[in-house]
Amino acid sequence: MKVSILGAGAMGAALTIPYSEKNDVILWGTEFDTAILDKLTKGEEHPRIGAKVAAKEILYPNELDKALDADIILIGVSTEGVMGIFKKIEKNLENQIIITIAKGFIERDEILTIPEAIWEDRRDLKGKIVSVTGPSIAREVAMKLPTHVTYSSVSEKTLDLIKNSLETHFYRIEASRDIIGCEVGSALKNVYSIAISWIRGIESRKNVTMNNLKGIIVSMALREISQMVTAKGGRWKSVYGFTGIGDLIATFRGGRNGMFGELLGKGYDVKSALKELEKRGVGVIEGYTNASRAYRLAEELDERGRLRLEELKLLNGINNVLYHGGNADEVIDALF
Amino acid sequence: MKVSILGAGAMGAALTIPYSEKNDVILWGTEFDTAILDKLTKGEEHPRIGAKVAAKEILYPNELDKALDADIILIGVSTEGVMGIFKKIEKNLENQIIITIAKGFIERDEILTIPEAIWEDRRDLKGKIVSVTGPSIAREVAMKLPTHVTYSSVSEKTLDLIKNSLETHFYRIEASRDIIGCEVGSALKNVYSIAISWIRGIESRKNVTMNNLKGIIVSMALREISQMVTAKGGRWKSVYGFTGIGDLIATFRGGRNGMFGELLGKGYDVKSALKELEKRGVGVIEGYTNASRAYRLAEELDERGRLRLEELKLLNGINNVLYHGGNADEVIDALF
Repeated sequence: MKVSILGAGAMGAALTIPYSEKNDVILWGTEFDTAILDKLTKGEEHPRIGAKVAAKEILYPNELDKALDADIILIGVSTEGVMGIFKKIEKNLENQIIITIAKGFIERDEILTIPEAIWEDRRDLKGKIVSVTGPSIAREVAMKLPTHVTYSSVSEKTLDLIKNSLETHFYRIEASRDIIGCEVGSALKNVYSIAISWIRGIESRKNVTMNNLKGIIVSMALREISQMVTAKGGRWKSVYGFTGIGDLIATFRGGRNGMFGELLGKGYDVKSALKELEKRGVGVIEGYTNASRAYRLAEELDERGRLRLEELKLLNGINNVLYHGGNADEVIDALF
Repeated sequence: MKVSILGAGAMGAALTIPYSEKNDVILWGTEFDTAILDKLTKGEEHPRIGAKVAAKEILYPNELDKALDADIILIGVSTEGVMGIFKKIEKNLENQIIITIAKGFIERDEILTIPEAIWEDRRDLKGKIVSVTGPSIAREVAMKLPTHVTYSSVSEKTLDLIKNSLETHFYRIEASRDIIGCEVGSALKNVYSIAISWIRGIESRKNVTMNNLKGIIVSMALREISQMVTAKGGRWKSVYGFTGIGDLIATFRGGRNGMFGELLGKGYDVKSALKELEKRGVGVIEGYTNASRAYRLAEELDERGRLRLEELKLLNGINNVLYHGGNADEVIDALF
């Protein structure tokens, strides 16, 4: 198969390694990636994964058309960029399978997952859209360390093709029909990671360990995520599998959402926490930009009688801390 | 209420602190606890929790009878000791509520949870038995850090009484009727913790991080635990709540089972791992002694057609490593 990866960030670059085992892989970079593309074309390592990519061809931003000659196209940019890339390639899409790996919501008249936003624009592509979720830290994928993720799609046929062509011994694929549950679950995981990481901040501020509290907050987070997933039409099993728990465990120590949450737990307000992360050179905090969308999604589901927003105590707490000047200690206190 | 705690180990001692908020608490120690009892009667801290106990009275091994004059009796010794203590107090039991906190199985003609073993001997006590599960590290309970655990019993009335008398602001109680699911889930959690901790050992031996693998193994462990819990008549929700996930997160870095698993992952065989732990002064590894019982339980459930043992790949792997000379790398490789 021909596989094109759009976006030369950590995950897009890392996936060239398993994907190239059975396929010809093209890696195309956006205008944000040009410095990296220069390194990669010289055969140097990708700085964010500590490994060389395995692409047959590396393409620059102005060569997008060449990347579209493929059987499988993976859109490997962040949530904010996905629909922009999709608009650019949409007219050339016929039978290609489109894989999306961003974990966030799209804001339209209502809150949509990325596949739903694509379907809204192009009903005919419904069975061609595939979502990747589950524990997958890019650097580990690039090192061929054992990874097992979930690829979901409404089409069994698409899933068969994907599994046959992309699975390797070290990069295993579990197929799921629950694309909505997987998308909602993994986007929410990023949002709830912020609250889970408050505890690390509180621990360091108070110089205590609070493992019992971590156990409680993680259980509560998964319960709320599962309520939202089922209210949105997904399956709770996706949350309690690789997509929810698996990803949560893999990223437990943090990532960007975790760093942000930890600062809030330490006592920073939102503005100063974001400033501190900017100073450290940390990019977009997907959990932060998606938290207000998650809250709006819960409001929509409440209006439709699918759940009761007031029962989602952690989500209300996150919303309170991020947008209404609340602080983490008060929110946690109120849970008890 | 009058509450007696039998066993002056870390957890028994820690529980004097929340329990004494609304009750008169007696702490009785076994012959293994006499050195600790001497400290406690002098008003010194309990060495394993770094805090003074809050008992109104501290009793020595020969004063067990005095401890039985109570409304609630908590048996706070390890699995191996529970039934011995129960035999000693059985004749004096009438209306007392009995709480058990050990997390393991009892081996009789078939594998039983602790409440089932008590019921087998004393059917009349069925509604009086209460099990405690969920994330509860003793030192944190003693420090009044936020803790939320599950108390389970077949009797709603017993649960109401327990919740009313033992719950405090920092020590919250969730009541559950699923005593079998909670008991099986938390005993299995200790067993599976061994396999989860292999990864830390492998990481340190190979000098890599394997967070993706951790995400996979935890998801698989919870799935297998949940299969066994439901096969035994419990509810999967107990596994995916405080009892399973919550406890797993709280004890993620280890405890004794984790230390044992980590050594196996580093390449120690079982004998040398146990020797090394003995050298470090680490006591009984409950997950080890319970792993063979967990396997036997799975065999029983398989024979009764309630599950298929061969599908429990991690449990088979644990059994293989602990009792048949297998090694962790091979087991993990075979999962992929």
